[in-house]
Amino acid sequence: MSRSTKKFILKSRPSGEVSSENFELVEERLPDVETGHLLIKTHYLSVDPYMRNRMNNVESYVSPFEVGSALSGDGIGEVIATESLNFEIGDIVVGTLPWQQFALIDEKKVEKIQLEETISPTAYLSVLGLTGLTAYFGLLDIGEPKTGETVVISAAAGAVGSVAGQIAKIKECKTIGIAGGEEKCHYLIKNLQFNEAIDYKSTPNIRKPLRKLCPERVDVYFDNVGGDLSDAVFYMLNNHARIVLCGQIALYNLNRLSIGPRMYPQFLVRRVRMQGFIVYDYAAQFSEARNQLKQWVLDKKIKYDENIIEGFEKLPEAFLGLFKGENIGKQLVKV
Amino acid sequence: MSRSTKKFILKSRPSGEVSSENFELVEERLPDVETGHLLIKTHYLSVDPYMRNRMNNVESYVSPFEVGSALSGDGIGEVIATESLNFEIGDIVVGTLPWQQFALIDEKKVEKIQLEETISPTAYLSVLGLTGLTAYFGLLDIGEPKTGETVVISAAAGAVGSVAGQIAKIKECKTIGIAGGEEKCHYLIKNLQFNEAIDYKSTPNIRKPLRKLCPERVDVYFDNVGGDLSDAVFYMLNNHARIVLCGQIALYNLNRLSIGPRMYPQFLVRRVRMQGFIVYDYAAQFSEARNQLKQWVLDKKIKYDENIIEGFEKLPEAFLGLFKGENIGKQLVKV
Repeated sequence: MSRSTKKFILKSRPSGEVSSENFELVEERLPDVETGHLLIKTHYLSVDPYMRNRMNNVESYVSPFEVGSALSGDGIGEVIATESLNFEIGDIVVGTLPWQQFALIDEKKVEKIQLEETISPTAYLSVLGLTGLTAYFGLLDIGEPKTGETVVISAAAGAVGSVAGQIAKIKECKTIGIAGGEEKCHYLIKNLQFNEAIDYKSTPNIRKPLRKLCPERVDVYFDNVGGDLSDAVFYMLNNHARIVLCGQIALYNLNRLSIGPRMYPQFLVRRVRMQGFIVYDYAAQFSEARNQLKQWVLDKKIKYDENIIEGFEKLPEAFLGLFKGENIGKQLVKV
Repeated sequence: MSRSTKKFILKSRPSGEVSSENFELVEERLPDVETGHLLIKTHYLSVDPYMRNRMNNVESYVSPFEVGSALSGDGIGEVIATESLNFEIGDIVVGTLPWQQFALIDEKKVEKIQLEETISPTAYLSVLGLTGLTAYFGLLDIGEPKTGETVVISAAAGAVGSVAGQIAKIKECKTIGIAGGEEKCHYLIKNLQFNEAIDYKSTPNIRKPLRKLCPERVDVYFDNVGGDLSDAVFYMLNNHARIVLCGQIALYNLNRLSIGPRMYPQFLVRRVRMQGFIVYDYAAQFSEARNQLKQWVLDKKIKYDENIIEGFEKLPEAFLGLFKGENIGKQLVKV
């Protein structure tokens, strides 16, 4: 029996800042479930900054969204009909799901999760999902933090930053978060045990607090932001510093290339290593990393916050909120 | 018996472009040779772009030159008096020597070299000296070129670039040099067997030839130059490309930070690794690397050119010439 679903499609590609005008809510009737496919009832969808890039018509490590088609992202759902021998009705799955209430999904595109009492299923979209894995591989594999080193994290109260900072603490580093607003800075220090936090919104020039808080300069910079804020950190890099290029949210909404100081002579003299990465490149190690993250969560060494907005219709709003720096932790939508 | 020597001192720190006004030729009487020291007659001195940075009053990986004191750089000399058991009169030594005709040197600061018939002593200032070692470690350790990859080298006809390009050829890479002027480009292709060369002086926008010559994009960029030219290469980087930050000569003479596009989002999406390095960090491996370079020279796999200006008084002129892009290969001064 076929069924209809609401879905959000990309109505138009944004030029510059993304707005609600770029999304359209439509209704469509789903075809029957084919062999090897599942009918999923979507429970939660994740909104993430990298999706902004997919709204441009540019080939990248993930293909762009098509105008007229549904957007998609990490999600959790429940199998409500199946033409696969590997899944049963009632199974909870994670994977890339379209922005739909119901969706037909190839069984190969999702993974069944075993729910545990002490960890909420939404953790598979945050600390145990791509967000946590991004923090894990970025900080450990590229940042290579060593005991006693100084680690600075931008967008530190965000989904990735908050996990990266806590891993830096596990590795016994002096951990400094940059975040927007007093509330977030308080959260970093009180809830997540960061050593220090800098509120870039109330600080006209963050080079001053950086100089004060990093007397031995910065060994690892985990960058989720880019732009002026990162330039300020670049002046404070130590010899042999590592820069983890994880996100550049300050630049995603720009129509043209951002212009700034060419820091390459400083990188040279200080023997800095800067490296961009995409979490999918580590897919072969996801399961091992997820086990480690799960253990840290169970040991209460990593706390995670989820900011859950209720209502399928609020997906665009939740996404737009990412660019206003409003959220602490992972932004999810409960469908 | 003490002896007098001519020497060049730093008269004033340059503001912006360096000029002959910043140097002064003086004469001084040398004290007697102390225990553990040598009196050296300078034969050759090397002039290198990195010295421009030492003329600023900025602490870096080498300390700045002092106003009123002699400049210094890589040199070859002959021991003409000794208060050391490890050196004899007539020994030929390499090391950091002051810009003086005669100099008193701590025996620990120089190294004796064994001359061979087939290799000129000046090779120890070029292909077997810091220049060749810089090309060797930068390309092999940071660039990690793999067979069949595309390697682009800026200032490719220069002392470091010309060796780096030939090592890239030994590693069976498609090797493309960027150099200024038809003569240098001809030299790269005809003498050094580069696959291609781009004359940036006759090409208003090098992105065009790069796109044509690098259909599979750029895997390794060995950067001696920086500025606009490097930005153009950055647009052509392949996934997982490596950038070797070796020199930034385009920026050394600037009073203020150079401004340009922030390429970090591109580095992120393409998973680029950019790394600055200083050859002294590899000191423990110099001897092994020098043996390999010597073997390649003997096998005629690496050719080297030295541009020798005669006359101690011409040191400033030779140094200033580096910034005019005049020289092919290593610039030396015969004292």
